[in-house]
This record gives sequence, structure tokens and C-alpha cells, in this order.
Amino acid sequence: MNKIYNPEKDSWSTILSRPTQTVEDIEATVLEIFNEVKQKGDVAIEKYTNLFDGIELTNIQVSATEISEKGKTIDGSLKQAILLAKNNIEKFHKAQKTSKIEVETAVGVNCWQEKRPIQKVGIYIPGGTAPLFSTVLMLAIPAKLAGCSEIVLCSPPDKEGNINPAILYAAELCGVTKVYKVGGIQAIAGMTFSTETIPQVFKIFGPGNQFVTVAKQLATKYGVAIDMPAGPSELLIVADDTSNASFVASDLLSQAEHGSDSQVILVSTSKSLIDKVETEIEIQIEDLPRKAMAQKAIDNSKLIYVDNDAIALNLINQYGPEHFIICTENEDFYIDGIQNAGSIFIGNYTPESAGDYASGTNHTLPTNGYAKQYSGVNLDSFLKSMTFQKVTKTGIKNIGNAIEIMASAEGLQAHKNAVTLRLNSLKDE
Amino acid sequence: MNKIYNPEKDSWSTILSRPTQTVEDIEATVLEIFNEVKQKGDVAIEKYTNLFDGIELTNIQVSATEISEKGKTIDGSLKQAILLAKNNIEKFHKAQKTSKIEVETAVGVNCWQEKRPIQKVGIYIPGGTAPLFSTVLMLAIPAKLAGCSEIVLCSPPDKEGNINPAILYAAELCGVTKVYKVGGIQAIAGMTFSTETIPQVFKIFGPGNQFVTVAKQLATKYGVAIDMPAGPSELLIVADDTSNASFVASDLLSQAEHGSDSQVILVSTSKSLIDKVETEIEIQIEDLPRKAMAQKAIDNSKLIYVDNDAIALNLINQYGPEHFIICTENEDFYIDGIQNAGSIFIGNYTPESAGDYASGTNHTLPTNGYAKQYSGVNLDSFLKSMTFQKVTKTGIKNIGNAIEIMASAEGLQAHKNAVTLRLNSLKDE
Repeated sequence: MNKIYNPEKDSWSTILSRPTQTVEDIEATVLEIFNEVKQKGDVAIEKYTNLFDGIELTNIQVSATEISEKGKTIDGSLKQAILLAKNNIEKFHKAQKTSKIEVETAVGVNCWQEKRPIQKVGIYIPGGTAPLFSTVLMLAIPAKLAGCSEIVLCSPPDKEGNINPAILYAAELCGVTKVYKVGGIQAIAGMTFSTETIPQVFKIFGPGNQFVTVAKQLATKYGVAIDMPAGPSELLIVADDTSNASFVASDLLSQAEHGSDSQVILVSTSKSLIDKVETEIEIQIEDLPRKAMAQKAIDNSKLIYVDNDAIALNLINQYGPEHFIICTENEDFYIDGIQNAGSIFIGNYTPESAGDYASGTNHTLPTNGYAKQYSGVNLDSFLKSMTFQKVTKTGIKNIGNAIEIMASAEGLQAHKNAVTLRLNSLKDE
Repeated sequence: MNKIYNPEKDSWSTILSRPTQTVEDIEATVLEIFNEVKQKGDVAIEKYTNLFDGIELTNIQVSATEISEKGKTIDGSLKQAILLAKNNIEKFHKAQKTSKIEVETAVGVNCWQEKRPIQKVGIYIPGGTAPLFSTVLMLAIPAKLAGCSEIVLCSPPDKEGNINPAILYAAELCGVTKVYKVGGIQAIAGMTFSTETIPQVFKIFGPGNQFVTVAKQLATKYGVAIDMPAGPSELLIVADDTSNASFVASDLLSQAEHGSDSQVILVSTSKSLIDKVETEIEIQIEDLPRKAMAQKAIDNSKLIYVDNDAIALNLINQYGPEHFIICTENEDFYIDGIQNAGSIFIGNYTPESAGDYASGTNHTLPTNGYAKQYSGVNLDSFLKSMTFQKVTKTGIKNIGNAIEIMASAEGLQAHKNAVTLRLNSLKDE
């Protein structure tokens, strides 16, 4: 752990720098697979599934029966936990529905804004040791609430050609319409171009390794939108002596276990808290099954002491953490002042895990400083806003001349004509 | 003009295909300028301003005095027109403000969503023959309403080293904080990396030629967000015999005058209307100053007859037009059924020009079929949504066990521990 005391402002960007991601070297691989999927469809999908996942599949679509039957096999207690989480996530995202906004901006000029669903969306769920069924909840629930008519889920098969039952259970529960046993670059390519089996979607959501990340970036060049650019997960905690060092340490470790490139930062105005947290981390890390991974992230972690809250807030806003935990007496100072963060956890009894699974907020959040300009996934991520206007005869009389003058000043005569013709037709009315 | 009768569904994507944009060949140029601006700052900015705009500038920032004084020189009638437009745009975008959304998802689990401004935004305004001061209104007004603290405007200087006074007038009126005489790739690069003079921004908005478009795409690789991917402007009109052929022709021409690659499409269930519109276009185009440009777009335009409204709607949703005008008796059929369009104009007295300038809706809209998944610029484009959660002791008792079970099932022991420690501490409470 790196303890840093009162760093100079000039050094903040260095201290807070994220691990560099080198994507250039994998872009060529991604492009090659994209081209092959575009040209050969399912044949290419099968080839790469065999190559990367080590399994030969004749049918990559999971049938409704298989989804339902395999989903049923998970533990009853896990089902109950998923139902509780679903309930909270649904409540919070349902509350985000906005109604039609209608304004008569001038007499006879009616403008309104409506949000309509993105018709086809894709959800990518990584495979591997941790089956991220929680991400299915976080993406499929708002997609369903938004009214997306096609919700496609892709996830890589294991060596036996299966998708984890908890993923299937969550998919069925949350209204996913189609599930495919396809992972990695080939899954993203499939949803970008469509194949004989996989449908094309308009927007792709979900986490993934660096290959998936680069594939999602490339997909945007072919007219597909993505939820947001991705980077390693990160947590910044601001804590003072009113916090519980053991809790703080457990939260830092829950971030650290995500991977060796996870970002773990503690900012405090208390030197003694920093020391206590350090000790607690050393104790707690011993029992973790993912200790090796967590240790690397902890080795790179920063414990930063600053003299006062104003400096701390400034530094935190410059960093723009994905997850931000506030465990300080004056929590309102940070709640009011935070400008750049994905999701914020307040008080000693709000671990990051709460938001990862069950509080109801979304866990798909901007990393890599993108909290400065990107929202985390929310209901609106599955909608697009459209504007409507209806101008009456009175309306065009009211604003027509202004349009003529402005169009003329911009040198756009045909734009002016479209108004002039209408105004002329109304001269006698 | 290409008249097409009852096209087979298989042929729609060919008929409705947009002009291909070849960006690969200019990516190298863009990357080179980006690297030079990153390394040499203002020196590179000045070099390329000299090269592309043919003017040597010692000071690229426009002073507050210059903005104010030059802005004053525009015609009084233009000022009035701009004020009218500003008023309408402001009303419509102010109505888009959403309030904090707060939900107690379970007892003791409080979640809320708040939108906070993107602190620093950049607005790019192209130069050339048409000084797009209207775009200043469309971008700076919502930026100011959102509460962005830094609103930077870049626009290329003319041969005398000036920016059009109408642009300066609009910039001052709408709360732009800094104006720079910098255009093209170098402007986007400057706002991406910052130079001695130009500040870095978190999100860049605004139209531009293909160099600017590619530069904005490249900016996203360096952590800057952009409003949306861009393509040539486009208009699709659906009209029947209740429409006015002369008005319809004038709207198609106002789109056509944007450039030879503009997309102009009429869909109708009336063959006679199609013929009338064709004749009207031939008459009206004769008097246009931008006739040559408009003619090329008209030559590529499509006048499509279909047998009924259901087919028409289906075809329109597949295309996803940026601008969509509805001039039919059963307008509600199209209003209710349109899934994919940027901005919609309804009735015979609502020309596209109305939305381009003064109805109040935004004119920065998704082209190239992106209406399927992207919103046009709106108030939210200048905000990001952040989520907050505060869990009480009771709250963690209510959801803690579900989190433990889910974290455990995902193999994330440290996530579970963070909850277990808290639950254990509360055993006696």
C-alpha cells in the first residue's frame, strides 16, 4: 500500500493515474474476427467458439425450455435473493420514467419531447469463474421497463457447452427474449452484423475483458451504440475517525478482488484511520479465496492523507471515481459537493456490495474518469428522446418572420422559402 | 429524381441506403494533427490555422470586449429574430429539467438519482459561407441551463482573422464563457488535450465536415465524450393528397440545399402527389442561390409510392430519418407509430425550418439511421445522472443476507465479507 501525505496538487494526476490500457495490439485481432463474422455468419461464430471456449456447438441458441429447466436448478435461497434484488432494482428504475414534456413555446407553436424504446438491445454477460447473473438483472430489468421489444443475451459457454443456470434464471425472470451461447469478440460481432442465428441489435450493453471492450468500440463504427467505454473497476473511499476501519478495509478489499488492475483509493483527513485501515486490510486479505488477485490491486492502492475536506473533495472530483463511499461525519459536504462519480454510498452501513447487488441502483457505471461526462446505466439508457412540433397557421405567423431572417443570414435561401411560401398563402387569412 | 413504386421489402435497405462515408483515408491526417497538438500545443494550433484557414494569428482567444463589440454590429432585425428563437429554445429545454428521483426500495434502503452538469463542454461551430449562429443557440442554451461552468466555443477564423459577428452575438447572449478562433481538426484536438490557451473539455458538441467528424471520433479514444456520431443531414416526408405539393417541395429543397450528399425522401400513398411535388421542385429550384448543390441532392432523391400507410410506416421506421415531416390526414397514425426519428414535424404549417431555427426544439439530431438508438441533443446531453444510496442499520439487516448469497454465488467472497462484518456488528442491536 502506498501512503501519501498531503500530495501537491501538481502531482494529483500522477498519483491518481489509472493503469494504461494498450488496446492497439488487439485491434487487429478484433477487426479480423469482425470481418469473418460479417462474411461467414454462424460458421465464423462456431469456429471462434471452438477456438476460444474449447467447445464445438451445433446449436448456439438456448431454447426456452432449456432456459426454464436449467434456471430452475439453482438453490431456493439464491432464487429468493435474486427476487429481492429484482424487486429493488425494478422499483428504482421504474421511478425513473419520465412523462411527455409539452410546451407551447409561442402561440400556435406546440413542441413536445417523448422517449421511445430502443427496439433491439443486446446484453453481454462474461463467463469465467464468476457468473455475473447480477449484471443480467442490472441490464434486462431496465430494458424490459423501457419497452425494448428484443432483448438479446450473449454469454460464452463453459467447457460442457452450458451457460451458468443462475444467468439463465435471471434472464427468464427479467424478460430476456433470446439467449445465445456465444462469448467474446464473436458475440459482439454477431450482434453488430447479425448472423443466420443471432439478430442484429441497435445498442450493446455489458462488461467484458479487453477483447470485448475493443470489440464494443469497433461496433460503434458499424452504427451500433454501446452503453459506455469501459475500464477496470474502481473505488474511492473518503473516511474520517467516525468511520469503522474494519468496514472501510472490507470495502477496499471487495474492490480489490475484482482484478489486479482494480483501483483502490482511500482519502482521509485522519492519519490514524489510514494506519488502522492498513492493518485491517493485512488481516482480512489472508482469508480471501481471490487473495492473489486482491493483493496486486492492494499493492497498487493509494492511502492519501490530506489536511482538510475541501482539498479532499477537490481531489475526488478530479479523479471522478466509479464508486465513491462517504464515511465521514460531515457527509453532506461530500454529497453536495461531488461533481464526478458514478454511484455514491453513504454512511457506515452502505457497502459498495449493496449497490453491486441489491439496493436498487445500477452497477453498470462509468470507470476511467468517465464519470465526468457519462451517466451510469439507467432507464434512459434504453430509450431515446424524440422531439415533435406542430405549428398552426397562427404559429407560423408568429415565428415565420424570425425564421426567414435567420435562414437568410445563414445563407440558406431554401430554408427561408419554405416559410415564405406558407406565409404568403396565409396573407388573406 | 427517382420515382419508385411499391418497392419490395427486400429492396428497402438498398433504396434507403445512405451515401458511404470513407473515413479511413483521412484518419491518418487527423491522428497526425492530434499528436502534434498534444505535443506542441499552441504552436501546432497556429501552424494549422495558417495552413487551413490561411491566416496568421497571434492571439486565438477572442476577448470579451471583441465578442461584445463585434456582436453588436449585426442588424437589429437579426438580433430580434435571434432573441425570439432563444426564448422558444429556452422554454422548451428548461421544461426538460428533471427533479431528483428518490425511492426507499426496502425499509432503510434509500436510493436516489440526481443529474449534475458536465463541468466543461466544448461547442464546435463550422465556418465557411453559412455562419451557423443558430447552432450556437442550440448548444449553448441547454449547456447554460444545465449549469455547465465552462462553455468553450471554437470556430475557424475567416481570411481576415475574424469570426462572424452573428456567432459572437449568439455566444455572448447564451452564456458561452470562452471563444477561440480555431477550426477543424486542430480545434477538436485543442479541446481534447488542452493547449497553453485552449482549455480541455469533457464533452464536445457540434457539427462539422468529415475532418471534424473523424476528429471527434478520435477524441473519444482520449476520454472525451461527443454529442453523437455525425453524417450528412436528411429529411423524409410522408404526405398524402391533403398536403400542399408546393410546401412539400420547398421542404425537400431546404434539405437539399445543405449539400450534395443530403438525403431527401418523399413517401406517399398518392401517385398524383408525387408527380405534383416533382413538378414543384423543378420550378422552385431554379431560383435558389445554392441550386448546384441542391440539384445533386435532388438527383439522388427518392420519391417512393407505397400502397398503404402501414407499409409506409414500416419503411420509415427502418430508415430512421433525422427529420421526419408528416403531412397526412391521419397524422396520428404516424405520430403514434414512429419509433425511429430525430425530430418530427406535423402538419402543413410546420416546415423543417421551424425546428432548425425557432420552434424551440433542438436541431442537433441523429443522422445516418442513429435515430434508432441515439437521442437528439437535449438538456440531458449536458448532464450526467449519478446515483446515491444510504443504507441504515435496519436497511442492511433487510438486504444484507441477499447480498451475501448473491456475492457468494458469483464467487466474490470479499463482497460478501463487507456485508457479513456489518451484520455481525449489529447482532446485539
